[in-house]
Amino acid sequence: MRISPFTTELQVRDYECDLQGIVNNAVYQHYLEHARHEYLNSRGLDFSELTALGVIIVVIRAELDYKQALRPGDRFSVSVSVKKLGRLKVVFEQEIRRLTDDELMLEAKITAASLKNGERPYFPEELGKLL
Amino acid sequence: MRISPFTTELQVRDYECDLQGIVNNAVYQHYLEHARHEYLNSRGLDFSELTALGVIIVVIRAELDYKQALRPGDRFSVSVSVKKLGRLKVVFEQEIRRLTDDELMLEAKITAASLKNGERPYFPEELGKLL
Amino acid sequence: MRISPFTTELQVRDYECDLQGIVNNAVYQHYLEHARHEYLNSRGLDFSELTALGVIIVVIRAELDYKQALRPGDRFSVSVSVKKLGRLKVVFEQEIRRLTDDELMLEAKITAASLKNGERPYFPEELGKLL
Amino acid sequence: MRISPFTTELQVRDYECDLQGIVNNAVYQHYLEHARHEYLNSRGLDFSELTALGVIIVVIRAELDYKQALRPGDRFSVSVSVKKLGRLKVVFEQEIRRLTDDELMLEAKITAASLKNGERPYFPEELGKLL
Repeated sequence: MRISPFTTELQVRDYECDLQGIVNNAVYQHYLEHARHEYLNSRGLDFSELTALGVIIVVIRAELDYKQALRPGDRFSVSVSVKKLGRLKVVFEQEIRRLTDDELMLEAKITAASLKNGERPYFPEELGKLL
Repeated sequence: MRISPFTTELQVRDYECDLQGIVNNAVYQHYLEHARHEYLNSRGLDFSELTALGVIIVVIRAELDYKQALRPGDRFSVSVSVKKLGRLKVVFEQEIRRLTDDELMLEAKITAASLKNGERPYFPEELGKLL
Repeated sequence: MRISPFTTELQVRDYECDLQGIVNNAVYQHYLEHARHEYLNSRGLDFSELTALGVIIVVIRAELDYKQALRPGDRFSVSVSVKKLGRLKVVFEQEIRRLTDDELMLEAKITAASLKNGERPYFPEELGKLL
Repeated sequence: MRISPFTTELQVRDYECDLQGIVNNAVYQHYLEHARHEYLNSRGLDFSELTALGVIIVVIRAELDYKQALRPGDRFSVSVSVKKLGRLKVVFEQEIRRLTDDELMLEAKITAASLKNGERPYFPEELGKLL
């Protein structure tokens, strides 16, 4: 059971929609990433500072299930809940829900790992704060 | 066995890189989408014309395995090979490979479906040309 | 004298930053566009609905003065104030200011015109609401 | 008189189009930036390497005249011609032309300056190669 995961709220911006008039597929990854970084912030971590310190956190796998399309102006929440996978990886389970009716728009599972100076995989102690 | 899938070649543009100095995760979905649309073109189909005709092709699931990061200036190929899944879906298997050494950078499986006027799922006869 | 122009508040998202670690130049146009569309909303107009009705509002000139760079996490305001230019054009004067210290980050003058069904220039009566 | 400026050729990708079905305004700045960076390459300079060396080249003013809209699939050229402005600035004059009919789509004047370690304005000797 997931107990109150971290959640942030956003709104679709018109430029995020493509010629189908709905949010472009790639943009959802931006939403998900932004929510993860907000989650880091909520735990006292800052993605750009970590990067500057040589802690390079990379996505190694993304699974995205698109349920319904977000449209211009839609307000939505993006949730983040984290668990460790093995010794070196973390998995972020995320959902995007439309605010007006709580409909599930997208479900995602993002697996991330860290590279010391962009090379050797390791588990940075900073990431302990996420768990 | 996959026999010579469709392939298109691109090059990383600096603005596609984020503060880690590597191509942002979401951008790979743009590369993949662009290659799929080029593939449609190669079969005499045009995504924006299909959209104008009310044939709305949407991604319903994306699985992306990030193997290595593309960097500023890297040249790479994006492949597309298609198969039908059930009666209504198509799956695009795609690979992104760096041109200098043929290294696999990303592997993806994109499942798409079509909606008649954005609502009822169906299999547009136009898509028969892809298979 | 400009009397309390419309203002919206946003925050830099990490993916909007490029390999220099600062917000990419093009992204400011997204911020400006989003603020203009929010401004339309505040006047009872909706950009995507106008588009669907065949009212195509296009930017014909953009002047942007970049004063200082926005950085990851920065909160900022985007203002919009409008005036008519000649019989057919509107000019949006916009400023982006960092919230922590009210510093001016960017100043812009965006000139827009409307096309009836994407062709003939005209002044849609809807836009009267902006002035 | 401008003698054969640097030129690069690109093609509109569908994801670069917004809900109006034409290339989004901000995207043109990406095209222009990419052409400038290609121009740097043609002179033996690399934008991301310069950045890594602490040579931070920033746009301080952009003037863009949108003449006609690029549409899905359009092939176009982006030209770059450079001149020095005062002691510390360079101006890039750029044009975007549709390849099928050589029509002018956008005309731009981009003024850039350099910051030593992101702070003090100076003229990096590397940029002498551009002129």
